Formats: sequence, C-alpha cells, structure tokens
Amino acid sequence: MNINLPVTIREVGLRDGLQSIARTLPTECKLEWLRGAYAAGLREIEVGSFVPTRLLPQLADTAELVAFAKTLPGLLTSVLVPNLKGAQAALDSHADLMLLPLSASHAHSLANLRETPDQVVIEIGKIRALRDSSGSNCQIEVGISTAFGCTLQGRVEEVEVLRLLQAALDAGADRVGLADTVGYADPQRVSRLFEKGFGVAGEHLACAHFHDTRGLGMANVFAAWQVGVRRFDACLAGIGGCPHAPGASGNVVTEDLAYLFASMGVTTGLDFGALIALRARLAQSLTGETLHGALWRAGLPRTMKNLE
Amino acid sequence: MNINLPVTIREVGLRDGLQSIARTLPTECKLEWLRGAYAAGLREIEVGSFVPTRLLPQLADTAELVAFAKTLPGLLTSVLVPNLKGAQAALDSHADLMLLPLSASHAHSLANLRETPDQVVIEIGKIRALRDSSGSNCQIEVGISTAFGCTLQGRVEEVEVLRLLQAALDAGADRVGLADTVGYADPQRVSRLFEKGFGVAGEHLACAHFHDTRGLGMANVFAAWQVGVRRFDACLAGIGGCPHAPGASGNVVTEDLAYLFASMGVTTGLDFGALIALRARLAQSLTGETLHGALWRAGLPRTMKNLE
Repeated sequence: MNINLPVTIREVGLRDGLQSIARTLPTECKLEWLRGAYAAGLREIEVGSFVPTRLLPQLADTAELVAFAKTLPGLLTSVLVPNLKGAQAALDSHADLMLLPLSASHAHSLANLRETPDQVVIEIGKIRALRDSSGSNCQIEVGISTAFGCTLQGRVEEVEVLRLLQAALDAGADRVGLADTVGYADPQRVSRLFEKGFGVAGEHLACAHFHDTRGLGMANVFAAWQVGVRRFDACLAGIGGCPHAPGASGNVVTEDLAYLFASMGVTTGLDFGALIALRARLAQSLTGETLHGALWRAGLPRTMKNLE
Repeated sequence: MNINLPVTIREVGLRDGLQSIARTLPTECKLEWLRGAYAAGLREIEVGSFVPTRLLPQLADTAELVAFAKTLPGLLTSVLVPNLKGAQAALDSHADLMLLPLSASHAHSLANLRETPDQVVIEIGKIRALRDSSGSNCQIEVGISTAFGCTLQGRVEEVEVLRLLQAALDAGADRVGLADTVGYADPQRVSRLFEKGFGVAGEHLACAHFHDTRGLGMANVFAAWQVGVRRFDACLAGIGGCPHAPGASGNVVTEDLAYLFASMGVTTGLDFGALIALRARLAQSLTGETLHGALWRAGLPRTMKNLE
C-alpha cells in the first residue's frame, strides 16, 4: 500500500448524524452545511436517505438536497437507500452514488430492514438491474453494517461478513465498505477484517465507517488506514450516536479525522479554518445536542499552519 | 514483538492529573483514589511529585501518599522528581521508582526546570550516584518530555530525542520513556520514534505517555503498542490537560485504555466495574472539573463481560 495516496473523507452528518437526533433541521440549515462542507474541501457528501418520510421526517428533503448538491462542481453526492423503491428515488434524483446497507447481523437486519441479509442481497441484485436498465451511472455501494458486532445479536462472525462482501459484489455492487454501526470494533479486529476483506473484494472494498462510541474511533481509523483503506465516513462535530447509549459519540469526527491525516502528512484536501468555522455555525443550529471532537478546542499545533 | 504480552497501565492522575488543576484535593480523597485504583487492579501508581510545595501545593502530601501506597502489596509506587533535592526526598520516602523529566525541547527545559537538557542529564548522573550510595533499589526512570513537539519551541527533532535517550542511559537511568507532553504526536510519528528509540535503548525504553489534546491519544497508544511498547501512563477520567488549551483533554483515559487492550484480547489485569465505580467517586470529588472518557458512558459491548 502506498502511504502517500490521498485519503477521501465522506461527510455523512447530513444523513447518519441527523437521522440519529430527534429534531428536524430546516432545509436552509442543511444547505448551509452542504455549502460549508464543500467550501472546506469535502468532495463526497451523503446528503440524506430515500426512506419513507414517516420513518425519518428529519430527512424528508433529501431530493431537494441532492438537487442543490448536484450544482456544486466535482462533488460526489451520495444518498442512503434501503430498498428498490428508494433506489428508484435515488435514480430520479440523479444522485451520483447510492449506499445500500446490508447488515452482517441477522438480528439487526430483521430489526432494521425486516429482511434477512440474504433477502437484502436479492434486493441489491434488483437494484443493480434497475440501475442498468435506467441507463444511469449512479454508483452502487453496499455498506456491510454491524460488521464488528451488534447490540442485538452480540458477536458477528468474520466469515459471515466476508460471505456477504462477496454476495454483495456478486449481486452487482460496484463497491463495498465495512461499518462498525454500534461502536464494537477494536483496531486489531479492524486490521484483520479489512485485510481479509481486501482478499475477497480487492479494490472494490473502498470505505470504512466507524463510530466513536467507546473512544476507539480514531485508533480504528488509523488501523484501517494502515492496511490500505483510503476512504472514510465521518461527521462534523461527531453528531448522532446510538439512542441506547445517551451521550455516546456518533460517527468519528470529520475535523479530527482531517487532523489525524494531516498530522501524518496524508493529503485530504480539507481546510482547517473552514471546517472549524462550519462546525461553529453547526453548533448554533444544533443548540442542545451533544457535540464531539477535540481539535476545535485545542486548535492546530504550532508546527502546523493548516491541514496540508 | 509478542502481541500476547500483558500491558501495564500506570495511573498518573494523582500526579499529572492533579498538578494540572487548580484545586487541592484533600489527602483523604487521594487515599481513596489510591485504594480504589489498587482494588481495580492497577499495580503501578504515580502518587505525586517531590517538588517545592510553593510551586505545587496540590501535591504537598506526596510523602504521606507514598507511605500509604507502600502498605499495598505488590504495588509499584512512583513519584516525579525534578532534581537532586527531590530525589533525596524520594529515597527518604522509600518510593519504588522515581520519574525524572528530561525535556527534548530546549525551550521547554529552560521554562520548566531552568536548565538546559544537558544540564538535566548531569543532574541525572548525580541522582544515580546518590541512589547508589544510599543503597536504595529505587528505580530511576527518565521520561523524555516534549518528545513529539513543544508549544514553546514548535518542532523537536527526532535526532535530539534519540541523543537524550542515550545520554539518560549513559548518565545512569534504569529505564527511559517517551512523553507527548503537549499532545502533538501522531501515530505515524509515534511508530517511527519508538522504533528508533528501541534501536537506541532496547528494552530500557519502557514507557509511553500520551495526552489526548487533539483526539489522537488512543491512536497513538495503539501505534506504540504495535511497535512493542507494553507500559503506558494514563489517568482516570482523563483529568488534567494543558492550561493553554482550556477544556482540552489531559492524559489518555485509564478506563478507555483498559478497554482498548481488553477489546484486543491483551491482558491488563484491570477490572472494569471497579474502574467505573472509582471514576464515579472521583467525579464527585472533582465537581466542576472537565472530565473525559467514553467507556463510562457507553458501557462494555454485550460481547464483553469484563476487561479480561
């Protein structure tokens, strides 16, 4: 692995962050977030989910956000899609990428999508057929959720994760990723599972998604990077988190992740000042929510002028 | 390196934590902390500093704490010592280990000890002679502070850190460690500097001391562990921190560090329930101080019964 390759951070706060908090952020706030994230150098942003509005009213304006995001040159606009109907909405919106969750935990899959993992794989095949017949070049990314364990089921076997990686690719996913949905991962397991995952999926394995629930988020990111992962999901101010662990962190924090890579001399294309300024505006919009992150408080070391 | 070797966590909250906050904790509270830390399985505890009371009134009861700590079977009692006078006090107290700070940053050394690093090395030689002539078997550990950068000076060159590691050993240190005093380290630099440090000091390099100022504490611990470090300083609830960065974390958090290793299957001998209960009592004693850590909030994953 070439350690000099740049790293891509995909901002997922507008989806994974906002779906986890009760309030609905006004569309104008979300658009400001989008504009700010783009201005700070983020070039992949997950703007929402095409799920029924009654389930996630917080994300009801996803199509509007995609439409705006598409006006920003060079931005890869990503949306989450739980099923064929959502995929049709994603295609209609002209999003660049749809993320399909596939739980490695049987129990989580039933609770989240009311389908077994293998039923979801069949749905992925249908989504691929729909995408191909529509003539769209929207990418299909399958995120294997609960890949490191599950709050419902407990252990998740690596062999099952690897089986589903292969099944997702066989069903037509363009790329796949591994997600520690509930913050159970540790860096050793991260190294091992991604190494095995590369053995199955090669360069199609192209995303790591970590939550910082138990303080290991950054160590897990580092471990994944060490074995070759170059694309990470993260969330400004680490909003979100698990409703079963009040106050626990959500996704790893975008600005801290940007600092991690900058401190190691790895390019992310992100601008520190712009990220921190955006974080401050977000904090105003999200008064009362628990925010996370360390860098906004401590600032850059005096040995570093910007994230470069 | 054998990844199955156990890891030792040295609790330094009573010294590095308490010296960084303004209030003076009553001796009885400190004794409870000591008892609780011992009951949770900690077998190395830094109980204070032998520095002039006018400089650190918070630590004026260090001799009393050493006396109590010495009654706990199998506990290695450590104290910080800035100079020959402090070393005499440490020997008088019958502490098991004295930690001597040696700044790799010239500017920090002058600000902190009013001596250049090389003057401090001469002092270390005198302390070694004093220890030997006293017939004590108190270990002498030199901690190279600001080893990863300095808020005063900025960059600290690796070659200078390695030169001081060698100089400390030549002057009579029994062991040496590397400390990221101001939270400038990143995991790549940690790997590199410890690997080079092992090249100079071999197994005498036996401690890593990280602060979590910018969110990289756990990633740095993991990186140091990967290259063979098996002994880490940490601080319950992560108290302390840098007076120049209000709200920034102090040392890496003992209970989170214990979780990191437990999650990787590495033995620390620590008991989760006892650590969390102690943290809760500490939080009462330290009302108003900013505490840190993630595990106390989220709890163990359901796949883990205790830190084992």
